[in-house]
Amino acid sequence: MINAEERIHHEGLRNKIMSAEQAAEFVQNGMNVAITGFTGAGYPKLLPTAIAEKAKAEHIAGRPFSIGMITGASTAPECDGVLAAANAVHFRNPFQSDPSMRNGINAGNIAYQDMHLSHVEQQMRQGFYGSFDLAVIEVSGITKDGKLIPAMGIGHANEALKVAEKIIIEVNFAQNAKLEGMHDVVFDIGVPPHRKPIAITGPFDRIGSPYLECPEEKIVAIVLSNSGDRNSKFADPDDNSKAIAAQIIDFFSHEVKAGRLPKNLLPLQSGVGNVANAVMAGLLDAPFDELTGYTEVLQDGMLDLILAGKMQHASATALSFSPDALQRFNDNIDFLRDKLILRPMEYTNNPEVIRRLGIIGMNAMIEADIYGNVNSTHVMGTKMMNGIGGSGDFTRNAFFSFFVSPSVAKDGAISCIVPMVSHHDHTEHDVMFIVTEQGMADLRGKSPRQRAQLIINNCAHPDYRDMLRDYYDRAEKAGSLHTPHLLMEALSWHQRFVETGDMRIK
Amino acid sequence: MINAEERIHHEGLRNKIMSAEQAAEFVQNGMNVAITGFTGAGYPKLLPTAIAEKAKAEHIAGRPFSIGMITGASTAPECDGVLAAANAVHFRNPFQSDPSMRNGINAGNIAYQDMHLSHVEQQMRQGFYGSFDLAVIEVSGITKDGKLIPAMGIGHANEALKVAEKIIIEVNFAQNAKLEGMHDVVFDIGVPPHRKPIAITGPFDRIGSPYLECPEEKIVAIVLSNSGDRNSKFADPDDNSKAIAAQIIDFFSHEVKAGRLPKNLLPLQSGVGNVANAVMAGLLDAPFDELTGYTEVLQDGMLDLILAGKMQHASATALSFSPDALQRFNDNIDFLRDKLILRPMEYTNNPEVIRRLGIIGMNAMIEADIYGNVNSTHVMGTKMMNGIGGSGDFTRNAFFSFFVSPSVAKDGAISCIVPMVSHHDHTEHDVMFIVTEQGMADLRGKSPRQRAQLIINNCAHPDYRDMLRDYYDRAEKAGSLHTPHLLMEALSWHQRFVETGDMRIK
Repeated sequence: MINAEERIHHEGLRNKIMSAEQAAEFVQNGMNVAITGFTGAGYPKLLPTAIAEKAKAEHIAGRPFSIGMITGASTAPECDGVLAAANAVHFRNPFQSDPSMRNGINAGNIAYQDMHLSHVEQQMRQGFYGSFDLAVIEVSGITKDGKLIPAMGIGHANEALKVAEKIIIEVNFAQNAKLEGMHDVVFDIGVPPHRKPIAITGPFDRIGSPYLECPEEKIVAIVLSNSGDRNSKFADPDDNSKAIAAQIIDFFSHEVKAGRLPKNLLPLQSGVGNVANAVMAGLLDAPFDELTGYTEVLQDGMLDLILAGKMQHASATALSFSPDALQRFNDNIDFLRDKLILRPMEYTNNPEVIRRLGIIGMNAMIEADIYGNVNSTHVMGTKMMNGIGGSGDFTRNAFFSFFVSPSVAKDGAISCIVPMVSHHDHTEHDVMFIVTEQGMADLRGKSPRQRAQLIINNCAHPDYRDMLRDYYDRAEKAGSLHTPHLLMEALSWHQRFVETGDMRIK
Repeated sequence: MINAEERIHHEGLRNKIMSAEQAAEFVQNGMNVAITGFTGAGYPKLLPTAIAEKAKAEHIAGRPFSIGMITGASTAPECDGVLAAANAVHFRNPFQSDPSMRNGINAGNIAYQDMHLSHVEQQMRQGFYGSFDLAVIEVSGITKDGKLIPAMGIGHANEALKVAEKIIIEVNFAQNAKLEGMHDVVFDIGVPPHRKPIAITGPFDRIGSPYLECPEEKIVAIVLSNSGDRNSKFADPDDNSKAIAAQIIDFFSHEVKAGRLPKNLLPLQSGVGNVANAVMAGLLDAPFDELTGYTEVLQDGMLDLILAGKMQHASATALSFSPDALQRFNDNIDFLRDKLILRPMEYTNNPEVIRRLGIIGMNAMIEADIYGNVNSTHVMGTKMMNGIGGSGDFTRNAFFSFFVSPSVAKDGAISCIVPMVSHHDHTEHDVMFIVTEQGMADLRGKSPRQRAQLIINNCAHPDYRDMLRDYYDRAEKAGSLHTPHLLMEALSWHQRFVETGDMRIK
């Protein structure tokens, strides 16, 4: 049983409490809606279902109903999932990972703009999306003076509150009340040409207030929810992940020994997913202490580094934990409050801060090609997986940029090293290291042809090395020798997979 | 007749004056050499020829001789040209535009690393290239206390002086002595994690000293030169360039009217070349005053905006003028000294400053595809033209990012709008506007399929529109509808050009 007074200390706002169904009446067809949520954290739990139900009823009545939906990043089945399934979304950005939403995008029903997450808030502010009719924001509580205590993710919440005409707040009673004070929310980065430097010179610098704010009169509804975040389980690190982690850790040791990297490394960024999480897990047993983190999403691996005393502190925009890790987080929240900061995505992903701090960026990929270009988003060149997220923000500005993947997928039918990537998200100019379980290619200071030798020999799976060498050798004979390619064959491996289910020639 | 005392006010350094041939004796086979030069400005005029002659003699004697050569950007025939022609270079980065150098790269004789110019200095400092045996630096004079007065370009000079074991200085007596005081050179951006914000909050903020410095004992030779920079002539704006400029200016007017852009716009960045220069020329007659510039290379167009009183001031790392513009620059140098700043490329191209200031980035391209990816570097996917230069640094961090090109080249045999670019330098996530003489496509907030409609209808040449529509329509029927492609046909236009000399089907 929820007692509203426990979390909503502002009396005027308590008067705006209503059901999700009532609040959904504020949502009209064609609206441009900013909805919080970042990698399965901080998304509204009830209102999306109410909007979806309204959409279905409208569709049955023969009326059109859909919204434009701009989030921080991915949400969950009860947000992206229900809205996509109800055909209630006509435009979506900047990132998603829900199967229903993905299907809607790839079926051509939902216009999806894939974008760098550091661009989202500034482009909302600069008017690139026109006006926002509504924002739907999850928080963990409201203070006596009406300030909002964010939940497990901030994302674009601060900007959504500013640009939206009307605001619906979901107060989630299932979130830990002790989250209060963990956030660092800044209210005025400004619009060019009147911007000042972002005063973050270390991962744990606080530059703002811990609360989100908005004028009371903009809040049209308060909905009370009481359920957890997505909290997907991570796979235990397998042999491939361990081999990838071991090589990266060996390289760090080498660079520390050579005096090119501090003993406690540099602030670590880790992309989402199992492999990236496994690299963090590998650092638990590595000979580095006093580590720091400056990352977009903080997952189990980095949490455990902090709990083990290996990492001093970390900054992120969202916490994305497995159920077990969430328990560890809640059990240790008093300890963790001085070691974790959650910030708006505009700061966590800002190129200014990332380049200044000298982040070590580690991100997963779908595939890399022999010249070091990386595809993070498209399956076989045409189908959207999730999106580029913050991987570009971090990669281009990192001190070291790593891309990691097992060398093959689908029981060997797909090589993650291909002649040419079928979609380009990170170009040869940005990618410094490719790492698979087979080995690592250090691409720094290398020409394309030098890179090709390293990637084929060190990273490709043995089953594909001869095929790659054959392609490369024939490309070298075909024409220009800066970036040799056979244009009519460059994407043939992907086409073969589409047709036969295997990149290998049977 | 050169009088050394006129430009070299430090007696000890005058004792190190020698001929270029003598200085070339310090250059040994296999050395890693940092050579200044940025877009035909600030490169050594004499030493490269002396090194080339030495290389030829060594080769005749049957001995290997070549160097690794890291510049600011492109140089000129008497630098890149003579060294490439003498087979005296085995590694080159980060940018070049000399025909001999380009031929050496595309013939596979020179390993070339194409890279973002903002990365160059920090990667030198961070040890990514190992040690630097030598730096060769052009300056316009030396002060009494041994400080170096830069010439018409800075590029990576400050970092080259720091990392090189030995230094050879070319003092160019042909440069205007009044350049003294125009530069803003900062000496300590630091290595992560100990970096502070770069305190530039407006294009004309000075944050450093106007002089380059290095320990006297590192300087092993001073060579006296007396000849001008490359100073290539720009083509007069043709109808295509004027049409491109007119659309961009119309868009600016529209945004100013809507209140989304200040009346004096935002700091302008203009890429190199005729079309970019023509856009600046177009602003001469546009209804905007008090403009500012924050750009990598300042060309005739921006100079004339300043001289005409339309632009208040500008910051760049190099001045690249036609002979006529150079005359105007020298005639007005007292006026211009308070309106131009030259900085290291690490600052002009820094993502921190570019994003903070909210630059309007305008860069030329080789081709764009129907989804808004841009190729800036490779002809027909395999042959290096010049390099990415600073276009990526500016594009990804700009308030507005424009890519411009006439819609066709080679009398219509090449379409600059293609199904898939043959090399990816700027991805769909970074490119906001494509502009040809046919029209403009505003890609902001658009899905790939929405972008395709805009680019085909607005930007493609009429001769190619039906071909593009045919490709797109068939791709839509072939599979996933996020980014429709026909993988085996995506690069066929380029292959057809290679085989027949025309992208059109005859």
